[in-house]
Amino acid sequence: MATEEVLVQQIQAKGEHVRELKTQQPQKELVDAAVQELLNLKLQYKELTGKDYAAPGARAKKEKKPKEEKQPKQKQQPKASEDGKKVTKLGVGVSKDENYSDWYSQVITKAEMIEYYDVSGCYVLRPWSYAIWEHIQAWFDAGIKKMGVRNCYFPMFVSQAVLEKEKTHIADFAPEVAWVTKAGQKDLDEPIAIRPTSETVIYPSFAKWCQSHRDLPIRVNQWCNVVRWEFKHPTPFLRTREFLWQEGHTAWQHPEEAEEEVFKILDLYAGIYTYLLAVPVVKGRKTEREKFAGGDFTTTVEAYVPVNGRGIQGGTSHHLGQNFSKMFNISFESPDAEGGKMHAWQNSWGLSTRTIGAMIMIHGDDKGLVLPPRVACIQVIVLAVGITAQTSEEKRKELCDKAQEIADALAAEGIRAETDLRDNYSPGWKFNHWELKGVPIRMEIGPKDLDKSQVMSVIRHSGEKKAMPLASIAKNTKELLDVIHDDMYKKVEKLRDEHKKVCLDWKDFTDLLDKKCIILSPFCGRPDCEDIIKEESARVDACQPGQSAMGGKSLCIPLEQPDIPLPENCIHPKCGHKAKFFTLFGRSY
Amino acid sequence: MATEEVLVQQIQAKGEHVRELKTQQPQKELVDAAVQELLNLKLQYKELTGKDYAAPGARAKKEKKPKEEKQPKQKQQPKASEDGKKVTKLGVGVSKDENYSDWYSQVITKAEMIEYYDVSGCYVLRPWSYAIWEHIQAWFDAGIKKMGVRNCYFPMFVSQAVLEKEKTHIADFAPEVAWVTKAGQKDLDEPIAIRPTSETVIYPSFAKWCQSHRDLPIRVNQWCNVVRWEFKHPTPFLRTREFLWQEGHTAWQHPEEAEEEVFKILDLYAGIYTYLLAVPVVKGRKTEREKFAGGDFTTTVEAYVPVNGRGIQGGTSHHLGQNFSKMFNISFESPDAEGGKMHAWQNSWGLSTRTIGAMIMIHGDDKGLVLPPRVACIQVIVLAVGITAQTSEEKRKELCDKAQEIADALAAEGIRAETDLRDNYSPGWKFNHWELKGVPIRMEIGPKDLDKSQVMSVIRHSGEKKAMPLASIAKNTKELLDVIHDDMYKKVEKLRDEHKKVCLDWKDFTDLLDKKCIILSPFCGRPDCEDIIKEESARVDACQPGQSAMGGKSLCIPLEQPDIPLPENCIHPKCGHKAKFFTLFGRSY
Repeated sequence: MATEEVLVQQIQAKGEHVRELKTQQPQKELVDAAVQELLNLKLQYKELTGKDYAAPGARAKKEKKPKEEKQPKQKQQPKASEDGKKVTKLGVGVSKDENYSDWYSQVITKAEMIEYYDVSGCYVLRPWSYAIWEHIQAWFDAGIKKMGVRNCYFPMFVSQAVLEKEKTHIADFAPEVAWVTKAGQKDLDEPIAIRPTSETVIYPSFAKWCQSHRDLPIRVNQWCNVVRWEFKHPTPFLRTREFLWQEGHTAWQHPEEAEEEVFKILDLYAGIYTYLLAVPVVKGRKTEREKFAGGDFTTTVEAYVPVNGRGIQGGTSHHLGQNFSKMFNISFESPDAEGGKMHAWQNSWGLSTRTIGAMIMIHGDDKGLVLPPRVACIQVIVLAVGITAQTSEEKRKELCDKAQEIADALAAEGIRAETDLRDNYSPGWKFNHWELKGVPIRMEIGPKDLDKSQVMSVIRHSGEKKAMPLASIAKNTKELLDVIHDDMYKKVEKLRDEHKKVCLDWKDFTDLLDKKCIILSPFCGRPDCEDIIKEESARVDACQPGQSAMGGKSLCIPLEQPDIPLPENCIHPKCGHKAKFFTLFGRSY
Repeated sequence: MATEEVLVQQIQAKGEHVRELKTQQPQKELVDAAVQELLNLKLQYKELTGKDYAAPGARAKKEKKPKEEKQPKQKQQPKASEDGKKVTKLGVGVSKDENYSDWYSQVITKAEMIEYYDVSGCYVLRPWSYAIWEHIQAWFDAGIKKMGVRNCYFPMFVSQAVLEKEKTHIADFAPEVAWVTKAGQKDLDEPIAIRPTSETVIYPSFAKWCQSHRDLPIRVNQWCNVVRWEFKHPTPFLRTREFLWQEGHTAWQHPEEAEEEVFKILDLYAGIYTYLLAVPVVKGRKTEREKFAGGDFTTTVEAYVPVNGRGIQGGTSHHLGQNFSKMFNISFESPDAEGGKMHAWQNSWGLSTRTIGAMIMIHGDDKGLVLPPRVACIQVIVLAVGITAQTSEEKRKELCDKAQEIADALAAEGIRAETDLRDNYSPGWKFNHWELKGVPIRMEIGPKDLDKSQVMSVIRHSGEKKAMPLASIAKNTKELLDVIHDDMYKKVEKLRDEHKKVCLDWKDFTDLLDKKCIILSPFCGRPDCEDIIKEESARVDACQPGQSAMGGKSLCIPLEQPDIPLPENCIHPKCGHKAKFFTLFGRSY
């Protein structure tokens, strides 16, 4: 089988790479990343073939004894199905805190979010994850349409000449651009690039459409795939060679209008996290070092991942100024008395399927996914329970009918409710299954519940159980979904706030990173200084396996600055420049 | 400017090609296609640069005098805008019947459906056309979700080994596959293909997901771009190297279930044409010659384009049988007593943005686009009219306020209504503009209408005018939109039915094609015979410019056969085989 062969080759190559790195200087970060990549490949191999990868000539690997004391209590009840077929082993076999990376790989595959694929860096978004993307799309799309943005579709191919027109911009993307050079058996006259982002694809059209100031603003958006052929270790959702996103592109007559839009879009991005995904974010500007190449300034929403204390960029809204409009000649006659040619003021803004990865990392637990209610494909799963060999067929039917009735009543009120009445799986198996998949509420109805006209609701994120009367079940469930959303948000916010520290002394900086903190420090804003901060806050000595030792990167300059006076000097002792603002630093994705 | 250079090169190369073709055998069809391509390139050049293309060393081309007698009455009132900028010349400069191909290019660009692009065969879908696609998406997506299909996203890249797994299938697509061979400056180890369709991308995952018969059916769909690098003359919407579509893929335990789905999807495809686009279609099966490579049978909806009498395939729903499941090992243990391994029964079905091209060709007229109400981005455009230099400012404001009030009242009832109250364009200019863009209803409100509490509605497709009382305007407009839809449908259906002829004598076959007919003839079903029919019904002698001389292709074997006895023999006199069914033949896209 080709796929298996490919994996075997990849594993061997990566193993070689790890050994090589280890014999060289102990660049901890590089070695860690390579080891991680190797482990992932082996996991893929196991997923694919059902067996552990055995190095050629190696003895069969012994099954490691699971560390019982550290493992979460797993109610695994794998059960042969009636037709005698093997049933996939349920449950996440590893704790999130213990081996975060394995946990992630297992959750996304076992919860049916991702299927691995035989082109490296590409993954299948299965319906369970794609549905989340559809909810994000629907909400954001309605938001931008209300603002006056309209959807369109630009080609995915770019000619080399156009791609390379804005030099600063392309310098950032060039190493990752995928090139088509052949069609059928025929070599193309010149290679054609696949968009890594569409500024250079779209702006020649803007130049045609923009003649008079009356043609402005031009405001378009597209939902599409883009390709960035990164050679770093790929991770589903977080770093993939092809990904889905939306990209908005607008052109304005006045800079103030454009800037106003930048922040309105940023608010919508924040809304995707806070309102849909139950994730708190910090809004801010990127530093010069981290801003979008070719733009004037970049704004961002930054989330915090408690398990490893890393920041993750959630979506960016850029003000491009006139840089692109000058390159692409997007101009109009000035309507002012003095006349003359004016260049348009432009924005671009994008948010990708990476959001889903952030959501998984932030909310997931040792039982698997935890889905925020507003994006969950199924919000309520209804089960009939308490059916034993002694239960009469009549009673069994009554329970199943009632479960269906409840699901229908909820669905009629717009709640995404389904039943799982399969008779070849035990209730215990189903509990685990739907917990693993992260469904916010499980409703159980057994003989006693039936007598009391109630269901037992079990809340995924807290494990809390509560009896709910069948009367007004839809109304109560709607309220409960909102409560769940708020609780999930607050839980993360509390963890985030506990780990958001003001640091005024460079001596504490790296220690705080090690304590999984994100750090607010006075900063001069200079790219050179930022490089030094990152370099000097990295750990080169050994540390716990699985824990990153990377240096602190600037996440953003928060729009809302801490309520304390800004010290005179930049946090880095050798910098010597004045501090301009508090900047949020952290290890990051 | 690079784009201009590229176009100039393309034009020169194509000119060379045309001359070459003309000096060889008079293969009318080839020459026509090349000439057409040349004209299109020149049009693109003009669109891009604002000037006519002049061959190097040629004298400046004289402006052709427009043929007044044949041209439609054009109410062109180009008017310099207040800021003294040139205003794009309005109106389609050529009649649909006279030069259909120019008409198409002009309509799609001037109505702002398409922007030309500097990668050949790729076009920009502007908001005005993309909105139509969004309406199609919303309607079809709801339909398949109700059936139990769920959306997902598979990678756009395919490894060569997997792509080429199903031999019959890849044989059809191989010449058009685009290959990525480079990323940044680095050559890839092996070239990676861009999906021309995703059977081979998706089915390895199906193999993993399908273990037990309880895992079936698997039913997924994706909305995505695909690439087929055709070397034939490209046409926006109809033949493009990248296009958007949906592709559904399903796997079933039993062939009957799968086949049932094939026809249910076909009904949804028919619904897109009849219910949304006001286009009648014939449902049928493709012949062996025309079916999807690698599948068991293909069903299709076929529309008719009155202006040139050509058929156009509207969407295809394939039953793949077990061909792919055997290649990709999509199998499960038989639940029957005897046991054993069973391969799943599969379908795939797809519909693309080509639908929009069909809609434009079928409904458009000499004034431009005619949009069917259910997919129109704007259904009603409201204008204030009768404002002259003598009109008081108060009256002007009253008219504009009323226009806005009407639009708001319509919008509140879910009708897509907008106003055009720009004061730098005359009513005449606006009439032409919105007619060109195909808006189904234009509502005009002038001083007299205000007095009578009415608006004057002008219906785009018929030119009919009717006064409508402001009381109950929303309700009446809703009804009117439905009437417009029905009338547009019937108009096309009538033309189609008048040109759908039963032909039992081969002598009449080509004449009927020339009379823009689609032809129902008895047919043996053999691919060889079909090739002969196509070849021998082609015209190799000169015919009117612009009229196609291609042979008749089988469009489909209609599910609903003509209500007359099937003759004993196939239509082709030299065939000698028995007729199996009536088949619909025609020149086609």
